[in-house]
Amino acid sequence: MQGCFASAGHPCLVSAGRVGRFRNARFADDISPTHTTLDAVTIEILNTGSELLLGRVLNTHQQWLCRQLADHGYVVERQVAVSDAAPAIRDAVRDALHRADFVVVTGGLGPTCDDRTRELIAALLGRELRHDPSVEASIRRFFESRNRPVPAGTRVEALVPEGAEVIPNAHGTAPGLSIPLDPNPFRPDRPAWLVLLPGPPRELRPMFLDQILPRLAERFPPAAGFTCRTLKTTGLGESAMEERLAGPLADLIARGMDLGFCARVGEVDVRFVAMGPEGPALVAEAERRARVAAGEFVFGIEDESLEAVVVREFASRGWTLATAESCTGGHIANRITNVPGASAVLLAGLVTYANAAKETFLGVTNDMLREHGAVSEPVARAMAEGARHATGASHAVATTGIAGPSGGSPGKPVGTVFIAVAGPSGTVARQHCNAFDRETFKFTTSQQVLALLLRKSIANTAAPAATRP
Amino acid sequence: MQGCFASAGHPCLVSAGRVGRFRNARFADDISPTHTTLDAVTIEILNTGSELLLGRVLNTHQQWLCRQLADHGYVVERQVAVSDAAPAIRDAVRDALHRADFVVVTGGLGPTCDDRTRELIAALLGRELRHDPSVEASIRRFFESRNRPVPAGTRVEALVPEGAEVIPNAHGTAPGLSIPLDPNPFRPDRPAWLVLLPGPPRELRPMFLDQILPRLAERFPPAAGFTCRTLKTTGLGESAMEERLAGPLADLIARGMDLGFCARVGEVDVRFVAMGPEGPALVAEAERRARVAAGEFVFGIEDESLEAVVVREFASRGWTLATAESCTGGHIANRITNVPGASAVLLAGLVTYANAAKETFLGVTNDMLREHGAVSEPVARAMAEGARHATGASHAVATTGIAGPSGGSPGKPVGTVFIAVAGPSGTVARQHCNAFDRETFKFTTSQQVLALLLRKSIANTAAPAATRP
Repeated sequence: MQGCFASAGHPCLVSAGRVGRFRNARFADDISPTHTTLDAVTIEILNTGSELLLGRVLNTHQQWLCRQLADHGYVVERQVAVSDAAPAIRDAVRDALHRADFVVVTGGLGPTCDDRTRELIAALLGRELRHDPSVEASIRRFFESRNRPVPAGTRVEALVPEGAEVIPNAHGTAPGLSIPLDPNPFRPDRPAWLVLLPGPPRELRPMFLDQILPRLAERFPPAAGFTCRTLKTTGLGESAMEERLAGPLADLIARGMDLGFCARVGEVDVRFVAMGPEGPALVAEAERRARVAAGEFVFGIEDESLEAVVVREFASRGWTLATAESCTGGHIANRITNVPGASAVLLAGLVTYANAAKETFLGVTNDMLREHGAVSEPVARAMAEGARHATGASHAVATTGIAGPSGGSPGKPVGTVFIAVAGPSGTVARQHCNAFDRETFKFTTSQQVLALLLRKSIANTAAPAATRP
Repeated sequence: MQGCFASAGHPCLVSAGRVGRFRNARFADDISPTHTTLDAVTIEILNTGSELLLGRVLNTHQQWLCRQLADHGYVVERQVAVSDAAPAIRDAVRDALHRADFVVVTGGLGPTCDDRTRELIAALLGRELRHDPSVEASIRRFFESRNRPVPAGTRVEALVPEGAEVIPNAHGTAPGLSIPLDPNPFRPDRPAWLVLLPGPPRELRPMFLDQILPRLAERFPPAAGFTCRTLKTTGLGESAMEERLAGPLADLIARGMDLGFCARVGEVDVRFVAMGPEGPALVAEAERRARVAAGEFVFGIEDESLEAVVVREFASRGWTLATAESCTGGHIANRITNVPGASAVLLAGLVTYANAAKETFLGVTNDMLREHGAVSEPVARAMAEGARHATGASHAVATTGIAGPSGGSPGKPVGTVFIAVAGPSGTVARQHCNAFDRETFKFTTSQQVLALLLRKSIANTAAPAATRP
């Protein structure tokens, strides 16, 4: 699929048609009639907020809600964003209720003048807003427990449209609202369910997971036996991965399993989805075969990050790590230390940007730097070995390269990088050319380093080899 | 505004109604008739891609396109995302052309089986797809210049709907398409302009900036004298910033200037927008007064990052920097080295996670660590001074704290952090409590460090004080 979104990846559903077997999916227009049943649920998401249309914030609700629903066997048909203006919200809600059975509206439930979703939707549905004393009491408790006065503006949050059910908000003051529409005034032949949720993710997310998803499953039971598994891989491109897997998985695909790929910078996710009672067996068999076919390129499952796997594997063996980074500038140490528990593994990270720092902290000799240049395999090896020696870590990694945009030469163009891993059984080095923008260069290089570290350390040493300083 | 998006911030347009004075805005329903002229342009964005509806990737196009348009005086009326399925794309394009004068469709122009936008839109408009030899030649050149064979699938990218203009793609193979619709078959009273762009951001963005925006300005001249300025601030919350600015700016707001705030983690943007011939003077005066009122909390303008300002200010003075990071784990070095040209400033970063590393690389004594604990002001000072000494940098920063989720104690809860800046005129230290999740803790701490570095170094020393090792 060429229509990709670079910051988040380049996904491809190899058998897009098969996704049609989601409970409600209309992804594939060639889907067979047996797959779309009359009671399929059509879902739309409506994000309100002028900040979205002014491009001042990124809409993270769209991905999060779609992901939660997909993981539970539902596919969202359409997502819409509109400003806080009354006509925009009214038109968009009306349009959504013309088409969908389940409509989730986010934002605009707070206390300020531009929070108008509650009032506009009540007016659109011709329902009166009534003051709910229990909501007001819970808003009061929220502020009192924080020793803060109750702002006058929050009173509007206690207004509830007739017939709406209040969805309590454990992390804020504005409750959500669940409004069953039977009949749906905009499509009398089918009832609809309208849910309004407050905008802040830390409020919306638990409300959706704990209070909306269970009701959705009751109202529209999800596809029977929806099974999904994602394998995380690094080191092979999407096409190369597909070539390895297509043969071994062909009969499972023929039996109804969906194989999907999502390629982002430095990673390819391989996704198996199957429906019905045979699903778990199909997906488990696909995972088993894919692990054989993709071998060392698989590093984890579901949402695991490469750095989390490194910390987990190292911690479980009592190993320790040091980093010696030139061109990645601390990016690897930063990724490792994002993982809770990293302090049990990372002893030190040395960002030796200047040559003098490579000499001072890693013992790389001036002769070596002069003879080979800082961007060279011998220097990468010496950096990794020097970091291991200086810190006493069982393993060390090193990077030296040209991140760009300037600094390249004909022999060593921008993107040239040497990486090395030093451990108890020796040192390995690799050369790559990561000719990307600066941040992508750093991330790609860090993926190559962490993958090499995992492969070489775990493949080479069965037993722990920790040497703490 | 309560409907905020936490990962990207909590924006608030203080005077939301005023945004209605954008060229085409319908944000405020109380907008006076003199502001909405008959030729106002209605803009919609349509993002296609099943990956979006499955929640596998974040839609960054929405924010980016809306932001570019807003910065040029246009407001997007509605953004819609649909899957790659034929009915979804057809319905969404038809709906958009019913309402809008300018419709931008992203994605689905590539060579794989799920790239169907070109063909579906041609069919919807009743236009034939014709093979364009010049497009095919440019695709051939793209691959030949990279010494790669031309994949057979790319031939479809040379198909162009009758009457469409090809938008060359300098960074990929799929061209964009510009399709004037006069008449617009779905709204005969007004012509429309439909633009199709490929999905990858590195392809779409330059095409939009270089080839679409200029044509848009020609077709629908932007609001006369649209003036916008953003001040970047750190160290004060949104409400505190508003309190400082509201008084000094009151008369400018009364004269029609819009004041907006966008708060994200560790930063608050202050935005001034004004229209018409008086706009530049109003905005310049607002900036001048805000710089006085917000003082040292202002660090830059527009999209500048704090690290870019640090690198620029240091480089211009010939200063050098070293970092000594414990709890931030390389995050500060990573931010600094994201800036092109950082190698002229950053000599070394020392991620001294283990106490032994603080002793080895920074000369922090074991006695001091025992007496005060690693998380203490004396250790933060000693780390900064040790890094300055060990590297010969003119300035050094240090962090030591408890990132969590575990490791806190009653006296030093999770989130406790000590930061220090050492320079030619001495060392300063601060204590903060950043009780957030791990990554937010690191980012917030790094903001405090970089802000302290800028304030203390530039306030204390007018003349360069570089000491390179």
